[in-house]
Amino acid sequence: MTTPGARPYVAVVGPGDGASPDDVAAARDVGRLLATAGAVVVTGGLGGVMAGATEGARESGGLTLALLPGTSRDGTDATVAVPTGLGEARNVLVVRAADAVLAVGGSWGTLSEIALARRTGVPVVCLGGWRVSDAAGADLALPRASSAPQAVTLVLELVRDASGTMNR
Amino acid sequence: MTTPGARPYVAVVGPGDGASPDDVAAARDVGRLLATAGAVVVTGGLGGVMAGATEGARESGGLTLALLPGTSRDGTDATVAVPTGLGEARNVLVVRAADAVLAVGGSWGTLSEIALARRTGVPVVCLGGWRVSDAAGADLALPRASSAPQAVTLVLELVRDASGTMNR
Amino acid sequence: MTTPGARPYVAVVGPGDGASPDDVAAARDVGRLLATAGAVVVTGGLGGVMAGATEGARESGGLTLALLPGTSRDGTDATVAVPTGLGEARNVLVVRAADAVLAVGGSWGTLSEIALARRTGVPVVCLGGWRVSDAAGADLALPRASSAPQAVTLVLELVRDASGTMNR
Amino acid sequence: MTTPGARPYVAVVGPGDGASPDDVAAARDVGRLLATAGAVVVTGGLGGVMAGATEGARESGGLTLALLPGTSRDGTDATVAVPTGLGEARNVLVVRAADAVLAVGGSWGTLSEIALARRTGVPVVCLGGWRVSDAAGADLALPRASSAPQAVTLVLELVRDASGTMNR
Repeated sequence: MTTPGARPYVAVVGPGDGASPDDVAAARDVGRLLATAGAVVVTGGLGGVMAGATEGARESGGLTLALLPGTSRDGTDATVAVPTGLGEARNVLVVRAADAVLAVGGSWGTLSEIALARRTGVPVVCLGGWRVSDAAGADLALPRASSAPQAVTLVLELVRDASGTMNR
Repeated sequence: MTTPGARPYVAVVGPGDGASPDDVAAARDVGRLLATAGAVVVTGGLGGVMAGATEGARESGGLTLALLPGTSRDGTDATVAVPTGLGEARNVLVVRAADAVLAVGGSWGTLSEIALARRTGVPVVCLGGWRVSDAAGADLALPRASSAPQAVTLVLELVRDASGTMNR
Repeated sequence: MTTPGARPYVAVVGPGDGASPDDVAAARDVGRLLATAGAVVVTGGLGGVMAGATEGARESGGLTLALLPGTSRDGTDATVAVPTGLGEARNVLVVRAADAVLAVGGSWGTLSEIALARRTGVPVVCLGGWRVSDAAGADLALPRASSAPQAVTLVLELVRDASGTMNR
Repeated sequence: MTTPGARPYVAVVGPGDGASPDDVAAARDVGRLLATAGAVVVTGGLGGVMAGATEGARESGGLTLALLPGTSRDGTDATVAVPTGLGEARNVLVVRAADAVLAVGGSWGTLSEIALARRTGVPVVCLGGWRVSDAAGADLALPRASSAPQAVTLVLELVRDASGTMNR
């Protein structure tokens, strides 16, 4: 939860080394816009979308937090890097650290973070990426954005709404 | 990994209290068949599909392991109950404990376990439940079964194949 | 907490490969006596004291649970083996899984488990091992046993007392 | 491990609300000196020694990281706050995040962090606090400092030595 006046924490999740150039470019835009808005950008600390969001945020002077799966801080230039040594269990920490999750692109790791966020009541916005439908074929409507600026606007609105009503 | 001759560990994942009666009945069948085949049945220790699989396995004299999110062992009658106190992070442990995952029905928690399994190379079989498609709309083919016996046959085949080729 | 009538879970903690032959022999006795008393024996799944306690319990037909630091089940013959992949963070799970902790011998890993148990209100009994004193030199009285039978009697008493008064 | 030229991360561990005024004052001094030396100060995010170290570091313009046991960021004014939701398992993360640990005062939680650090090869310096001796009564020599400046000098030397020889 965001204390009124405090910086929001937004996790930017997405594929690592397998990310497409478009996803990485979108992640950089997202990171830049979030930093400009004063958000702390949280990632899983690896390459692709994670590195893109971190770099974008740093270019705008933003504060970035990397929660790494391994036991070394190497390979990220986040402001603060935490080598968790938990492997994929760090995905849970990425979600817990965040007031909202912005997913750029799709992968199984990304989907695990979206699902964990939905399971635990953390708002999610998707920019591109996979789709999930129930057994009857109905789309499990995630808020979807069609551009980086729209995604950032939407995710910050969700944080504001949540901080007014939720206390997790 | 299963040592040759050792019992396979199969995680049965699915919705808890929100599970449909059909899902719970299928989970009980799955539990019974897995126990009969000598598998250890691993669950997240709550109600619905988890309780159904545990009860089915116990009815057949099987060994069951519950990895609970909270700090109490109450509420499961698994042979061995581990109160992890990790919340949804125990989903990662459910997947790590298993040679394969059998998902019955759909929920965000269930989807997180399927995604974590796919991310870490643990085979998954789905009986009912949600569907995942990529940005282009292509189904991300999970092995899908249409009955409890077929699901169990399929998941045990995947364990056998994996134990021959993988060493995780 | 132990539900009245349920089996107590007792963690036997102690050094792994560096354990002395005396510690391993004591751990085997402890495991045998705990199993005879109907307790589930929980360990960290490695060698030395952990393997000794597991073997002793199995010789008496007891139920054993190994919570391993790595991602493989190999190397333990516990009834149920959980490869947590959490490294030393699994020490917390060993303590959480237990109604009481019985420490045989001393090591830094063992001391971490004793300290975590004391921190979280899980009763501890020590058979040999290290001593802890405060800044003024006063012994931080842990219940200490001088033999395996005495240690087991004491730890089971503590479980009984705790199950009457605590609800964790 | 510290990349040459990178900021060292030093965990300041110690009792929370039960800390003595002297321990809190020492923690504030330690935090200030570490920040002045360019270190990132890592704590468990609660009161007492943790709050003292965080405040001292912030007064000197330092970067601080709080790894909290609960699921809320409230109650710390660290630069970056991570609500882990892991309870005492976050002690492992505090140690993993650090190039070295500086313990101020004694408690069971503090002792668990010292033991986990020793177990995993992270250097430890103690300022006051408890003592640990082996079964024969020999002191398990931790580097001990007698003042905050000496403790900080010593811990930064240990980080430098470790970064030259270790790669964890």
